[in-house]
Amino acid sequence: MRRVVVLGGGHSKFCFNSPKTSVEMLSEVAMDAIRESSLEARDIQAINVGNVLGDFAEGQGMVQSFFANDIGCFNVPATRFEGACASGSIALRDAFIWVASGYYDIVLVGGVERATAMGTALATRTFAMFGDSRYEFPTGFTFPAAFGLLAHLYAHRYRIPLERLKEQMAAVSVQSHEYAMKNPHAQIHKQLSKEEVLKSFMVTTPIQLHDACPFSDGAAAVVLASEEVAKKLTNQPVYISGIGQTSSGKLSSQYQYLPRLRARELAAEQAYRMAGLTPQDIDVCELHDCFSIAAIIAAEGLGLFEFGTAGEAWERGETRLGGKIPINMSGGLKAKGHPIGATGVSQAYELTRQLRGQLVEQGRQVDEAKHALMDTLGGDGVLVSIIFSAA
Amino acid sequence: MRRVVVLGGGHSKFCFNSPKTSVEMLSEVAMDAIRESSLEARDIQAINVGNVLGDFAEGQGMVQSFFANDIGCFNVPATRFEGACASGSIALRDAFIWVASGYYDIVLVGGVERATAMGTALATRTFAMFGDSRYEFPTGFTFPAAFGLLAHLYAHRYRIPLERLKEQMAAVSVQSHEYAMKNPHAQIHKQLSKEEVLKSFMVTTPIQLHDACPFSDGAAAVVLASEEVAKKLTNQPVYISGIGQTSSGKLSSQYQYLPRLRARELAAEQAYRMAGLTPQDIDVCELHDCFSIAAIIAAEGLGLFEFGTAGEAWERGETRLGGKIPINMSGGLKAKGHPIGATGVSQAYELTRQLRGQLVEQGRQVDEAKHALMDTLGGDGVLVSIIFSAA
Repeated sequence: MRRVVVLGGGHSKFCFNSPKTSVEMLSEVAMDAIRESSLEARDIQAINVGNVLGDFAEGQGMVQSFFANDIGCFNVPATRFEGACASGSIALRDAFIWVASGYYDIVLVGGVERATAMGTALATRTFAMFGDSRYEFPTGFTFPAAFGLLAHLYAHRYRIPLERLKEQMAAVSVQSHEYAMKNPHAQIHKQLSKEEVLKSFMVTTPIQLHDACPFSDGAAAVVLASEEVAKKLTNQPVYISGIGQTSSGKLSSQYQYLPRLRARELAAEQAYRMAGLTPQDIDVCELHDCFSIAAIIAAEGLGLFEFGTAGEAWERGETRLGGKIPINMSGGLKAKGHPIGATGVSQAYELTRQLRGQLVEQGRQVDEAKHALMDTLGGDGVLVSIIFSAA
Repeated sequence: MRRVVVLGGGHSKFCFNSPKTSVEMLSEVAMDAIRESSLEARDIQAINVGNVLGDFAEGQGMVQSFFANDIGCFNVPATRFEGACASGSIALRDAFIWVASGYYDIVLVGGVERATAMGTALATRTFAMFGDSRYEFPTGFTFPAAFGLLAHLYAHRYRIPLERLKEQMAAVSVQSHEYAMKNPHAQIHKQLSKEEVLKSFMVTTPIQLHDACPFSDGAAAVVLASEEVAKKLTNQPVYISGIGQTSSGKLSSQYQYLPRLRARELAAEQAYRMAGLTPQDIDVCELHDCFSIAAIIAAEGLGLFEFGTAGEAWERGETRLGGKIPINMSGGLKAKGHPIGATGVSQAYELTRQLRGQLVEQGRQVDEAKHALMDTLGGDGVLVSIIFSAA
């Protein structure tokens, strides 16, 4: 297997109700990524795109072919991946395999979503299609309900009073809003206090409005290349050093393991093993905080904190810049936004910039970051872990 | 790159209005494929699935994770591919790369669609989402219209009077219905005469009802394995000897090349080059006859007949069993049916059986077939060509 490098990237501002189509958003970030990679559209040998609701929400399926044509990538293989909120990460992992194997030298990876026009209530029902539609959805088991259940299980398992857990959860959201203020691509630029979180309306006990990420439109892209090609194009190569993907079925079939997600732990294990690293080696992390409790569960499943302790770590500032392990310096899904097909590619874009030291001016650069971990969760249970390493 | 073998397969009966969900259909054919490969579910290292409308038509996205869990493939990467009608072929091609590269030894590939419950009129509009939704669809450019346009362009380019072309097109449909009678999985078991085709109602000039494939539900699966693994499991290996994929954008941007599809010709070129074969080496072919004119255009684009002559070839019986190049011995999309996400996997299933000589009893076995070509078209322009070769 060859080493694979992330070259340039492109990232739209995440927003509510984008006036641009998915094809347009994707075209813009892809051209940015190609330019930043010192390449031309004709150099791209294959295109992978994460997109979940193109047909459902916008009436445009197969966005990958149309945008490829529009930017001048003619007659290359263009492939769409759908694994709910992990779609972009799956597209990225697949591109990694294609380049690592020597099948292609240069692959463009994009992610895009434009799903907010339907409004929040309908979007919650729409997203529930990526849980189990036969047995879970008919019982009202949408994603806020699923993470509400996980919060209850978490409080029970680790003997944390629910009111204490809610304070810990609030700490996650407060921090995410703070760092999003420093990220020009973030959807939400608004300071948030612990009190505001705890006073926000109850979605489903104990999940309150500010425990949840927003619905978002947006796009991101990165270019992957073989080490040999990359060396001619950049003197700041960022490598994909470890990668793992696993899928599990409906959450309700995993009741013996919850609130831990076994698929995440296995995906992370694959990535750590491939990279020859342990959680202690990770300098910065972007993880899947679709709800604040999801961030707590993720940080533990990735091995960054002991089980039952991540909420306190957030409260103590261990996840902040300068803390033990800075998490979601982008603002995370909570405040950067969560255009579901784009999220994984956005995480890769962010971490590449962290490893290149390009976020100093924005005031959210982790000093001397060498290894970065990304974690994306899709639907009831697709997990992707990717580790990026500076040269 | 390692050689890749197709092991066992599974195939549902294609039908209208399946009482089974996509997850159920996929589970059944996958178990058949695993059993026929002399494997167990736990041997499967990764799963690729072609599916187009799971969320839109059935309210179940990410079918790959749920069915994987249901059949006991726990925590493997399960990935969904969407490239309209070529989704299954793209899933297959990706699995080929994964096995050829040495990343995995055994990958299950499935395809499934359950999209007929919405009825024919709505389905036509739904499928149009896989053409260009911004400029083409608003002008009424659904797929029947697109292929009607191609038929007019074809008649004009090759100076064939439209009434003559309609007779040639009818010959394609008549042959497909004849062979489908011999295929127990086919959706339509009904003899069709040339007169019936020409008297059927006009959908969009010159496309009549019997020039078009039906809407279908169904599923198919195959297992791919490395040659080393396969040798322990079968003494009838069928190899994937050549493979190609290309994507183009909206049909209306390709007007200078139409009625030929450049993406198909490039994809086929890739597959022939990899296999070290020419069209003359192909013994049997399954190609994308979503409309009868599509079959004629495909056969020429694949190099099986001179441009402008394929319709006559069908009329002369050159595409029949014993003819120059038997095409769509399965009944094709026209009569076997076209559950869009499953179609490519179904083609692979069929050709594997042809190369193993397993269709003698069904009366549609091509004698001593050594090399088989499959061709799948997705939406406005994803093309996949795959060549299978007997040991």
